[in-house]
Amino acid sequence: MTDKPNSVSWIAADWGTSNLRVHGVGADGAILAEAASDEGMGSLAPDAFEPALLRLVGPWLGAGVTPVLAAGMVGARQGWTEAAYRAVPCPPLAPGGLTRAPTRDPRLAVWIAPGLSQARPADVMRGEETQIAGAMALHPGFDGVMCLPGTHSKWARVSADEVTGFQTCMTGELFALLARQSVLRHSLAGEVSDDASFDEALSDALSRPERVAARLFSIRAESLLSGLSPEAARGRLSGRLIGMELAATRPWWLGQRVVLIGSAPLCATYARALAAQGVPSETLPAAGCTLAGLSTLLPGLPR
Amino acid sequence: MTDKPNSVSWIAADWGTSNLRVHGVGADGAILAEAASDEGMGSLAPDAFEPALLRLVGPWLGAGVTPVLAAGMVGARQGWTEAAYRAVPCPPLAPGGLTRAPTRDPRLAVWIAPGLSQARPADVMRGEETQIAGAMALHPGFDGVMCLPGTHSKWARVSADEVTGFQTCMTGELFALLARQSVLRHSLAGEVSDDASFDEALSDALSRPERVAARLFSIRAESLLSGLSPEAARGRLSGRLIGMELAATRPWWLGQRVVLIGSAPLCATYARALAAQGVPSETLPAAGCTLAGLSTLLPGLPR
Repeated sequence: MTDKPNSVSWIAADWGTSNLRVHGVGADGAILAEAASDEGMGSLAPDAFEPALLRLVGPWLGAGVTPVLAAGMVGARQGWTEAAYRAVPCPPLAPGGLTRAPTRDPRLAVWIAPGLSQARPADVMRGEETQIAGAMALHPGFDGVMCLPGTHSKWARVSADEVTGFQTCMTGELFALLARQSVLRHSLAGEVSDDASFDEALSDALSRPERVAARLFSIRAESLLSGLSPEAARGRLSGRLIGMELAATRPWWLGQRVVLIGSAPLCATYARALAAQGVPSETLPAAGCTLAGLSTLLPGLPR
Repeated sequence: MTDKPNSVSWIAADWGTSNLRVHGVGADGAILAEAASDEGMGSLAPDAFEPALLRLVGPWLGAGVTPVLAAGMVGARQGWTEAAYRAVPCPPLAPGGLTRAPTRDPRLAVWIAPGLSQARPADVMRGEETQIAGAMALHPGFDGVMCLPGTHSKWARVSADEVTGFQTCMTGELFALLARQSVLRHSLAGEVSDDASFDEALSDALSRPERVAARLFSIRAESLLSGLSPEAARGRLSGRLIGMELAATRPWWLGQRVVLIGSAPLCATYARALAAQGVPSETLPAAGCTLAGLSTLLPGLPR
């Protein structure tokens, strides 16, 4: 879908560390085109961002100026241009707070949404604030907790149209490192995770969080000594790490109804884990929330 | 030190996943030669072990047969030849339990010491059993707890000349993955760790183990927001992970006097952590324990 839809009125860019995803949006809000590449922030020098963007959206540009609204690590200090964090409590996005990125092509006007920071405990996010803004646009008046599971899971409290606080857990990154690079990699294979093993490890991590450090290598030992299946091993590692996250974030979800934002399979895993604690949840797709969040910025753009 | 000491009577080999270390020992127990290479088990096919060994010890061999006693991952299923685990409770080494490795060079007779296994909770070790045997030889009648900090830290209970149980924590591997490959790598640099930061993170992890998952990313956030130094960041990560290990192994060290076996700097870190809990410890060097352990096998070798 990189044809030339002449009526693209603005472009939404989700620009993370590893990937760039763009949507060409019409004046009526319809998605007219989409494209993606692996030219994430992590692999680009500052002057390489504009060419990377043009490779994807060049065919969508008309004669005039097309605004591009971008969220994510593109606004980090090591990104295209730094969009300084906004400190919570504050609305997740503020139209006046956009940072203009330097461009050469006269057809482009690129605006980057800044991330959020929290002084105590120290925490930061970039990209998730846009998804939270999108979820709030989809749920006007929302008051409660949002969880964005992923490489760095975020838990955010939303009240009176503001993010009042948030908490990051490195659960996805820990899982990837342990599953792919630690000695446990020999015991895990494929992408299938056994539900019963997940549930048991989750419950154990939540009820005895102090023992987690003693429960990781046992996955390897059981596969050596008693043939633990790769699916069971994967379920256990996932359950144990998500259990650690839920143990650390108990005040965030206890007695709450949680809105999950992310990929469908990962949100289903978190929904299962929360349901086991008696916590209901609802899932919103990450891409839809990013687009809805960036859309809220459009009316405030300088003309 | 790979000269030709003609009087080498036997060779001790510490053959792990990443390294091979050999000592040429005289009839009186004196170390006459030593050598090392990075030809660890992880990088060798079964028929590559003998050549790797000969590259180091070839110059030490005389006309007759020189026995080589080896400990470590060399005896794993993916190693030179499998030396099946012995199940605890049992003495850490048993002369009758050695496995002969296939060799072509008539000057070599290679014997591999098997590791230990534990059925419940499932656990395994390879190499550490030899250090434990060495420490027991240095402390006849020892009754208590030994801790071997490292990539995979081992805690072992020793009583009546047997290992009665043990527990592995992946603390060293977790630290290496997080310090070198996770997002925290941007905040850590060098090898220096700040003691006060270590102590604080250790105490926090021990008193609130359920919050550890929420305390890792904050290292990165604080370095972004308030310029946390690399030394403080390193101290915090180390303190938090060793704190997780001590939280999980509390029944092993509480009210005990612990014998630490390992590298001097790592043992000093664990000694500091244990001392903060009121637990005295004594440190024995790993290489000396391996040699002392393998020495106990010599009298039982087939002639």
